[in-house]
Amino acid sequence: MPNQFRMIAYTEHITFNTKDRYEIFDITEHVESVREKSGLTDGMILVTAMHITASVFVNDHESGLWSDIMTWLEKLAPAQPNYKHHLTGEDNADAHLKRMILGHQVIVPVTKGKLDLGPWERVHYGEFDGQRPKRVLFKAIGMGA
Amino acid sequence: MPNQFRMIAYTEHITFNTKDRYEIFDITEHVESVREKSGLTDGMILVTAMHITASVFVNDHESGLWSDIMTWLEKLAPAQPNYKHHLTGEDNADAHLKRMILGHQVIVPVTKGKLDLGPWERVHYGEFDGQRPKRVLFKAIGMGA
Amino acid sequence: MPNQFRMIAYTEHITFNTKDRYEIFDITEHVESVREKSGLTDGMILVTAMHITASVFVNDHESGLWSDIMTWLEKLAPAQPNYKHHLTGEDNADAHLKRMILGHQVIVPVTKGKLDLGPWERVHYGEFDGQRPKRVLFKAIGMGA
Repeated sequence: MPNQFRMIAYTEHITFNTKDRYEIFDITEHVESVREKSGLTDGMILVTAMHITASVFVNDHESGLWSDIMTWLEKLAPAQPNYKHHLTGEDNADAHLKRMILGHQVIVPVTKGKLDLGPWERVHYGEFDGQRPKRVLFKAIGMGA
Repeated sequence: MPNQFRMIAYTEHITFNTKDRYEIFDITEHVESVREKSGLTDGMILVTAMHITASVFVNDHESGLWSDIMTWLEKLAPAQPNYKHHLTGEDNADAHLKRMILGHQVIVPVTKGKLDLGPWERVHYGEFDGQRPKRVLFKAIGMGA
Repeated sequence: MPNQFRMIAYTEHITFNTKDRYEIFDITEHVESVREKSGLTDGMILVTAMHITASVFVNDHESGLWSDIMTWLEKLAPAQPNYKHHLTGEDNADAHLKRMILGHQVIVPVTKGKLDLGPWERVHYGEFDGQRPKRVLFKAIGMGA
């Protein structure tokens, strides 16, 4: 039996170009914009970094915490010359490791036409090798009215 | 061509309130309950912490390992006073970091009407700033009979 | 209103058996093969390790980096005898921890009939307790033509 809803699959690729090599910022407004354009009423929005030296993660919109996260990542996965990856001519092995800790994608649930996030949940982009254009994919999947 | 299945989108929000500040416990029974109520036969169930100091992750149901995980997280992201996040009056920056290592959401696949998990895969909730009500969202998406 | 697409849900379980206890390798060709067999044109493919001592993650196809990742994981979650999990007779607690850092599943977006990956994004399997058969689940969900 076909139901009265239609299936939605809507995709956007958004490019970010950070001023600094290392940067964290809030991208929840982009998720909301994609939801609105998609017409999704119930389902999920995948938000995924398309570059392997960046993260997408959910945490608090608080600049002190963003600074703590960067300090902490530097301790766990320091920028230093002696990575084997650097034998290829690259200098960003630390960025490949840092992005693994925070993860590179999240799923934002959508319920009754709204992002179904907790009171402090905000979607963030974490850049560890910036200062050049890098893409993030947003894909809404589920039911529309 | 519409197929003979109907699309399912079913959501529950379940509140946990842990006795201790730090706690790990198995929530697979809730995932199974959501699957049953949703009627989902093929698809996925998103399980996602709605608070930014908690995790949802898949690992072994073994209390020795749960203890190892907590000891390990304390080593990698220690509770200590000198986080910048604490300048806001908060005291839980370690919880914001610990939850990033384990992750805050998982997707449980459903195939032929059953959770499609490996023999030792169990879904767990990790609380790092508990002793108050906190919500977890379960959303089933896919096909029903 | 039913739309002109049909909903797809297609699942494969693929078994890997590594020669070494610790190993990283590229499994993107399997994701592509599942996409082709599924007929998925717009949606997502979940790729998830069914064993709790293995990872699925997205990073660079570069053997120097794979070596860096293993060295780094050994530093953050060392193999050593004194885990409580080992009181059960197991010797692989480090593998349970290592897999948490890289994560155990990824979602690969599919757009216009193709894996929608960035230029260097490749899906990898990370094994931390191998030398025996272990399964990975691939599930395609979304719209087919």
